[in-house]
Amino acid sequence: MAAVVAAAAEETTSEDTAVESIVVVHNIAKRHNVGTMARSATAFGVSEMVLVGRRDFNAFGSHGSTSHLRFRHLHSLPLARAHLKERGFDICGVEIADGALPVDRHPFRKSTAFLLGNEGTGLSPKECEICDFFVYIPQYGCGTASLNVTVAASIVLHHFGVWAGFPERNRVGSKFTVAEKPVKQVRRNYCVESIESVIEERKSRKESASHDMFEEPQVVDDSRDGNLLETLFDC
Amino acid sequence: MAAVVAAAAEETTSEDTAVESIVVVHNIAKRHNVGTMARSATAFGVSEMVLVGRRDFNAFGSHGSTSHLRFRHLHSLPLARAHLKERGFDICGVEIADGALPVDRHPFRKSTAFLLGNEGTGLSPKECEICDFFVYIPQYGCGTASLNVTVAASIVLHHFGVWAGFPERNRVGSKFTVAEKPVKQVRRNYCVESIESVIEERKSRKESASHDMFEEPQVVDDSRDGNLLETLFDC
Repeated sequence: MAAVVAAAAEETTSEDTAVESIVVVHNIAKRHNVGTMARSATAFGVSEMVLVGRRDFNAFGSHGSTSHLRFRHLHSLPLARAHLKERGFDICGVEIADGALPVDRHPFRKSTAFLLGNEGTGLSPKECEICDFFVYIPQYGCGTASLNVTVAASIVLHHFGVWAGFPERNRVGSKFTVAEKPVKQVRRNYCVESIESVIEERKSRKESASHDMFEEPQVVDDSRDGNLLETLFDC
Repeated sequence: MAAVVAAAAEETTSEDTAVESIVVVHNIAKRHNVGTMARSATAFGVSEMVLVGRRDFNAFGSHGSTSHLRFRHLHSLPLARAHLKERGFDICGVEIADGALPVDRHPFRKSTAFLLGNEGTGLSPKECEICDFFVYIPQYGCGTASLNVTVAASIVLHHFGVWAGFPERNRVGSKFTVAEKPVKQVRRNYCVESIESVIEERKSRKESASHDMFEEPQVVDDSRDGNLLETLFDC
């Protein structure tokens, strides 16, 4: 059961460590947040970024890091859960929820996917349903009810990297070294669907309410030629 | 020797804990970054935000948190150092510099001011000169040479809060409680200079290259009526 992934760039963690991290974003409202989140994700050794629901985003803020990150699009939260569970991941909601644990205590056990909700409302009940546990970031001041979603994601991913003991990237001067951009990518993470796959998906949705993975064939549409950084995923 | 501070909102740390943190920003290029940084600063119990050099910024991203934060403007890095040293602060540069320590090791001793440099170039040699030590945030992936400045600041401030043992803010549901906005503020951190103070400053600069604090009288110009959130500081 293989969903389509856009071309994977250099693997950052799976070869070197026993555990991996994944970022799952669901209907993020401000699309530019995904760009900055991708930058932090590559910095902290995230293996994959899963977009659930809305697949378009703006890579502003990514500073080219999206070329080095594997992206996946899944149509629904149950599909995302099935995909992650099949790969043996814990699903951790980043939310100030009842029972949530402070992230600096590193309450991790194994490979973990971090689910981030909408900027304004946080995780919805449906999003919370697919989570195995929750972490939150303690706050000490009186001036804000919550953090920017990218900031929150970055702090959590940073802590996971510390906990996992990911090997530190080499540095040159005051910068970490960036890998060469992958040459033979399938249009730089540009993941489009064929008409057939869309029809198939709709048919599948109607026929079954099961949580099986939706197969999304890997297709490169050569007729498209847009700003790939603007729309890495495009319907 | 009292430099002007804009109206201080509710104190978040100095009453409750032995140590404090301060954020110092010097010529941040993207002015909206200061807004998001202010949001994180209030979240992590920062006592004061010091703007050195450029004093105008865009509070977009602050979500109103600037009302709860004390701001100070200082004209130069030596003045900033003098101000911080007089108050007994360590000055910590946030930079991937030689000898920089990983922030998750919490290499802090006492009240600390964190200096953040320009988004593109990081801390300049002159900025590094005023620092007592440096921290950096380890990275594990191959896709980016550095982090977004607001993300970096937030991770560092978070760690300082954990190290300092700042008391955690109360929560209601999935949000931390935000204090009432201060009623009697001096135009919500709106810090302007009188003509006299500008003349005085120029005179002072000519007469002396010393590092004495520049006195900046607190003045409210009632004739101004702009978008205060857009330009909390205005020349």
